[in-house]
Amino acid sequence: MHPIVNEKVNQIAGILKEQEQDLWLVFVRETSAAGDPVLPLVYGEADLTWQSALIFTADHQKIAILGRYEVETARQIGAFDWVIPYDEDIKPALLQELQRINPQKIAVNYSVDDVLADGLSYGMYLNLVSLLKETPFADRLTSAEKVISALRGRKTPSEILRIKQAISSTVEIYEKAFSLIEPGMSEIEVSNVMQSEVERQGLGYAWPKNNNPAVNTGPDSPVGHNAPTKLVIEPGHLLHFDFGVKQDGYCADIQRMVYFLNINEKEPPEPVKKGFETVVKAIHVAFEAIQPGVPGIEIDALARAVITDAGFPEYKYATGHQLGRLAHDGGGLLGPAWARYGKTPYEPIEVGQVYTIEPGLTVPDYGYIGIEEDILVTDQGAIFLSKPQTSLIIK
Amino acid sequence: MHPIVNEKVNQIAGILKEQEQDLWLVFVRETSAAGDPVLPLVYGEADLTWQSALIFTADHQKIAILGRYEVETARQIGAFDWVIPYDEDIKPALLQELQRINPQKIAVNYSVDDVLADGLSYGMYLNLVSLLKETPFADRLTSAEKVISALRGRKTPSEILRIKQAISSTVEIYEKAFSLIEPGMSEIEVSNVMQSEVERQGLGYAWPKNNNPAVNTGPDSPVGHNAPTKLVIEPGHLLHFDFGVKQDGYCADIQRMVYFLNINEKEPPEPVKKGFETVVKAIHVAFEAIQPGVPGIEIDALARAVITDAGFPEYKYATGHQLGRLAHDGGGLLGPAWARYGKTPYEPIEVGQVYTIEPGLTVPDYGYIGIEEDILVTDQGAIFLSKPQTSLIIK
Repeated sequence: MHPIVNEKVNQIAGILKEQEQDLWLVFVRETSAAGDPVLPLVYGEADLTWQSALIFTADHQKIAILGRYEVETARQIGAFDWVIPYDEDIKPALLQELQRINPQKIAVNYSVDDVLADGLSYGMYLNLVSLLKETPFADRLTSAEKVISALRGRKTPSEILRIKQAISSTVEIYEKAFSLIEPGMSEIEVSNVMQSEVERQGLGYAWPKNNNPAVNTGPDSPVGHNAPTKLVIEPGHLLHFDFGVKQDGYCADIQRMVYFLNINEKEPPEPVKKGFETVVKAIHVAFEAIQPGVPGIEIDALARAVITDAGFPEYKYATGHQLGRLAHDGGGLLGPAWARYGKTPYEPIEVGQVYTIEPGLTVPDYGYIGIEEDILVTDQGAIFLSKPQTSLIIK
Repeated sequence: MHPIVNEKVNQIAGILKEQEQDLWLVFVRETSAAGDPVLPLVYGEADLTWQSALIFTADHQKIAILGRYEVETARQIGAFDWVIPYDEDIKPALLQELQRINPQKIAVNYSVDDVLADGLSYGMYLNLVSLLKETPFADRLTSAEKVISALRGRKTPSEILRIKQAISSTVEIYEKAFSLIEPGMSEIEVSNVMQSEVERQGLGYAWPKNNNPAVNTGPDSPVGHNAPTKLVIEPGHLLHFDFGVKQDGYCADIQRMVYFLNINEKEPPEPVKKGFETVVKAIHVAFEAIQPGVPGIEIDALARAVITDAGFPEYKYATGHQLGRLAHDGGGLLGPAWARYGKTPYEPIEVGQVYTIEPGLTVPDYGYIGIEEDILVTDQGAIFLSKPQTSLIIK
C-alpha cells in the first residue's frame, strides 16, 4: 500500500466533479525514459513500461490498464479498484472500459502554459487519437490542466507531514551553518558546510545543487539562480541564504538573513534595520491576508506595496509560489500580472496549498535582504510551517 | 567542453543528410520538471528553463536559442556555433533563424512508436504551431524519429567505453552476490546485499531501484517488473536475477541464473538442465545471426523458435532491446510483430548499436530461467561486452 498515492487518488473524484469532468486519463509508456510529472502523485515511484492507462472517474472508479508484468506492482500500490493486464495491445481493454463508462469528456495531460500538466507527449497523443478512431471518444478529449493543478495544490495530511519534515531538516542545517559561519569564509565555503550536511544525512536537494544553497555576502554578490562565489564574508556584510532540502520526495524552500557587525557596531546600522523590518512586514501583511478564495495576485500586490511604500524598488519576481514535490510546484501563484506568469496569479488560493512568501530588497552598501517562509493554507487562513525569522541573526 | 555532447552533436549533420532532413529542432521548456530524453545527448545534464530551441542543420550549423540566464552554461558545453539569448519571447529569434536557413522540412521530436524520439509534449507542440502560424514552416514539421534513433543507436567510442564500464561494475557486484547467497535468504535480503554494494560504490541504477535487481527464487515468485518479495531461497530453487547499474550516465542490463541443489542432488535435475541449455542456445543462435542490415524481427524469430521448438511457451516480450543512456535505449528492437512494438522490430541492425539478448522460460516446480547478455554490433557481427553465462551457477 502506497499511502501518499492512495490519499492523492482519493482526492480525484471530488476534483473531477468540481471541474465538471467525467473521466481523467493518464496515458503513458516507458516512464523511466520519459515520465509524466503527475505520475509520482497517482502511481508512485514505479515505472510503467508498455502503453498504460490510469483511469479515474468522477464516480470514484480507479482503473489501471497495463502490461502484464507490471500488474503485481500496480496491485501493491493499492489505489486501484481494477488492475487490468494486457499482453499485446492496450486497445481492447481501453476501449472496453471507455465504452462501459461512456464519459462525455476525457481529460488528458496537456497544457500550453503549465509544464506540470503537460505530460502527454505528442506521439502518445497521436497514439491515443488513433486508438479512439471510429469511437465517439476521439472528439471528447480535453485538457486536464485544472484537475492536475488542484490535485498538486491540495496537499493531503501525509504530504504536509513530509513537507514539514523537509522544512525541519532545512532549519536544522541552517542552525548548524549559523553556528559555524564567520568573517573570512567565502560563499563557496559556507555552501560546502551546508551541502556536506545534506549529504551526510542522505537528503536530496529541492532544486539543483549548483545554487542550493544560494549564498550572498555583502553588496557585491550577484543575486539570482547562480552558484556561490569566492567572495568572502566581511564585517558590515549582510549574508543572504536561499536553501531547501528534498526529503522523501517533498521540498522545503527557505531564505534567511545574517548580519556581521562592523568593528564598532553594537547593532546593525539603520538602513539594514529598516530593510529587514520592511521585508518582515511585507511577509506579515501577505501572511495575514491569505484566505481561501483570494486570488494570489491580491496577496502579491499587498506584499509588493510594503516594499515600494518604504522607498525600495519592487522585486522582479513573484511574492510566493507553491511548494510540494517540486520547489516550484506549479498552479496558482502569489504573483503580479506579468505576461510570463500567464493566468496563474488569478487562481484563487485553496485550503491545503503550501506557498512560499519571499519578498526581497537591496540595502545599498550592505547587501541583499530576502526572507522566505513556507506557509500552509487552512480554512482559517495561513499558518507558518516553521518559526518565521523576525529578527536578524547577528554575528 | 562536454566531450560526449560534442561527439554526439558532430554525428548529427551526417545523419540529417542520410535521412534527407534539412533541420532538426529540439524544442523544450522547464526540463527539470519534464525533460526530452534526447537532451543528455545534445545538451548534457544542464536544465533549460524558458522555452528553448536547439537547432541542427544538415550543413553543420548548430544553434541554441535560450533564456538569457542560461547562455553561459550553453557556451560552456562547447557544441554550439551560435548561442542566442532572449529575454521575453523566443519567437523573434526562432523565426529569424528559420527564415535565414529556410528548411524545407523541420524534424521535431515526436514519434508514435519510439518513446525516446517523443520528447515534444503535446502542449509544446501546440506552442510551436502557434509560434509558426502565418509562416510557411508550420506545414513543414515532420518526425525526427529516424534521426534520433540513428543518433542514439550509433554509439561513439566514449559511449561504448562507458557502457563497458557499467557492465564491468555490474558483473563485479554479481560475483559478490553469488559468493554470499545461500538457502534461507529472502529475495529482499539478496537484493539488499547487491543494492548496498551499488550504493557503497556510488553507482546509480539502470532502472528503478524498486526492482533492480529483480530477484526470483523458486516456482512461486512473481516474475516481472516487480520488487523482490519475502520468499526464501530453498534447495531445489532456481534463482533468477535481472540487474544493471548506471555509471557515468550509461547502463548495463544483465540477467543471471543460479541453482540450489536439493539434498540428494549432485547436479541440477533434467528439466532445469534442459531449460537452461535451451535459453543458452537461444542466445547463441541470436548472437550468431546478428549482422548490420538484418531487421531485428529476424533475430527475435530465431531465438523465439529455439524456446518453442524445445516445447516451452513463448516469452511475452522482445528478445532484445538497445542499451545505452537508458536500459531500454529505444530505436530498433529484436522483437516480434506485436502491436505494442510498432515498427521498431523492422529497423535494420546498425554498426555501433548495443543490444541485449534475453530469452526466457519457466521450468515448472523449479522457477524461471532468464539469461541476458549485452552485445555490440560491429561490421563483422556481434561481440559480447562481458563473458556470457553458459553454465548454471550451482550452490
